[in-house]
Amino acid sequence: MLEAMRWLPNEECLELLDQTRLPAEITYVKCCEYRDIVSAIKRLAVRGAPAIGTAAAYGLVMAARNISAKSKKEYSYQLRGAARELAATRPTAVNLSWALDRLLQKFDDADTDNHGELYGLLLEEAHAIYREDISGNRRMGNYGQGFIPQGGSVLTHCNAGALATAGYGTALGVIRAAREAGKNVSVYACETRPLLQGARLTALEMMQENIPVTLITDNMAGFLMAKGKVDLVIVGADRISANGDVANKIGTYGLAVMAKAHNIPFYVAAPVSTVDLKLASGDEIPIEERDHTEVTHHGGRLLAPAGVNVWNPAFDVTPHNLITAIITDKGVVWPPYKENLKKII
Amino acid sequence: MLEAMRWLPNEECLELLDQTRLPAEITYVKCCEYRDIVSAIKRLAVRGAPAIGTAAAYGLVMAARNISAKSKKEYSYQLRGAARELAATRPTAVNLSWALDRLLQKFDDADTDNHGELYGLLLEEAHAIYREDISGNRRMGNYGQGFIPQGGSVLTHCNAGALATAGYGTALGVIRAAREAGKNVSVYACETRPLLQGARLTALEMMQENIPVTLITDNMAGFLMAKGKVDLVIVGADRISANGDVANKIGTYGLAVMAKAHNIPFYVAAPVSTVDLKLASGDEIPIEERDHTEVTHHGGRLLAPAGVNVWNPAFDVTPHNLITAIITDKGVVWPPYKENLKKII
Repeated sequence: MLEAMRWLPNEECLELLDQTRLPAEITYVKCCEYRDIVSAIKRLAVRGAPAIGTAAAYGLVMAARNISAKSKKEYSYQLRGAARELAATRPTAVNLSWALDRLLQKFDDADTDNHGELYGLLLEEAHAIYREDISGNRRMGNYGQGFIPQGGSVLTHCNAGALATAGYGTALGVIRAAREAGKNVSVYACETRPLLQGARLTALEMMQENIPVTLITDNMAGFLMAKGKVDLVIVGADRISANGDVANKIGTYGLAVMAKAHNIPFYVAAPVSTVDLKLASGDEIPIEERDHTEVTHHGGRLLAPAGVNVWNPAFDVTPHNLITAIITDKGVVWPPYKENLKKII
Repeated sequence: MLEAMRWLPNEECLELLDQTRLPAEITYVKCCEYRDIVSAIKRLAVRGAPAIGTAAAYGLVMAARNISAKSKKEYSYQLRGAARELAATRPTAVNLSWALDRLLQKFDDADTDNHGELYGLLLEEAHAIYREDISGNRRMGNYGQGFIPQGGSVLTHCNAGALATAGYGTALGVIRAAREAGKNVSVYACETRPLLQGARLTALEMMQENIPVTLITDNMAGFLMAKGKVDLVIVGADRISANGDVANKIGTYGLAVMAKAHNIPFYVAAPVSTVDLKLASGDEIPIEERDHTEVTHHGGRLLAPAGVNVWNPAFDVTPHNLITAIITDKGVVWPPYKENLKKII
């Protein structure tokens, strides 16, 4: 299984798999300063809500290493400055601020102003986030795999796999767990325009594990469902509001509408770190809009008339009433989400 | 307005705009033998149901020119051989066989076996198809433009414009007619993977006429509708069965499902030559599946892992119950289509 990131203990740097180069090249980039992490998240070398949360945590560790401060207050000021920079890289996934807040809380709670000790505590917390993400994904897989029947065909969107997390994956973790439970599972991967994470990453992950995968363009999903080829849909999430509305990769909402029209169950798999109880509904989730060239260009080639106007939201919001259940690392949450989500946080 | 094709009377050849090179290059290819037309249709230099019907008619004219036969029976045998080859280029659009059948009928009805006269009759029939397509599209535009409100925002898919027809367009013809009627209209163009006819052709046609157009990836349509940005959807058609089911570019069905979920009217604009009363329902429409490399490659670059399995249907079928009305060159057809379609044929 490809790893999205690995900590190099001797160098105290994080190696990130450069996902923009997949599947053509498997290249790791070494990040030794927090601004390397800022830039890697911005340019999508690392992507996926849990993965950018974990990478940002390591980024804050790197920022801490370089702080020279006369007091804990001054240390805190500098640390929070770096945290704000890391948090500002991408607006939609809440895991980013969740991970950074965990480290800041650890820092605030620490009964020391020794730089070495503080650094050690922060590094240990980043490692904990990393480890818990993988173990959480395995539990999620275990909770969710029961929804996949023997011989089942799963449609998924974007990449919510090992590459989107510290390891194992959320939506693809559920598929992996079904396979480990001895089921034959096959996968339809929506290519996921504009950046083709389904084609480049999900197809790659499934092929590497010999899980049968068929690639489709995003606009084929409806016809595929109409032909009875999809038993269930499983996707990941970037942020879940208190009422169970889910922000996820653009196109998720359309799949949910079509799944409903075909009576196909639609599951979201995400760790509880993706749940943002501060937001009442999905209307409040900030949706990142990205550069027009993602749509108009591929590999430097222009695909459309020069100067065409483009709308390029990176995410959309799926309302809770279209979601059959939310599979988390703390168990499966059923509607009504407004009541049941807060029980597991 | 770019022309998909033009007949060169002195050379007796058809010039086709090579649509595979748009928008980067405006290149016309000269077809002087019917097999040039066969190859141009197969490689999508000319595409769009009415346009391939018209081009095939001219192709049959070229085949007739080269026939040397001792009897009308032998002429007919050779002509029908060429017609079968032209008809076999693409399976879904019925306009292809409709246009060829019109020429064969003209041939059968002709009370002559003089080669020059037969050739002249066939050429005149091809010209008639060409002229009627343009005038039919203008009537269709006139019938349909009333559905577009002042300041309306229209979502369309693929390219059902001047480039998909002899001229003016079907779905885009309705938009042009609304504009000519003095309305401000804006267009959202789904890029239409895998071959990007929306990005390459529809965006180009609209920009050339200063009709405001915004390009989106196919998977953004649902979110766009949820945000209230779409007043109506208009698409073309490749074949309409007797009950009003519509085969059109892959992705049309998903748009229709989503339009229904958002209470957005969904119109199909197509000439009556697209209606195939011989087929009871859309289940009987043959759906072309195209090469996997259309999905896995762009401009020779591999977008997905080598060897990935792909499903690549070029069309899907939208059931009649999702279609608000069918705008034809003989008037607007309302449900129940099974009764009302046959009234206008």
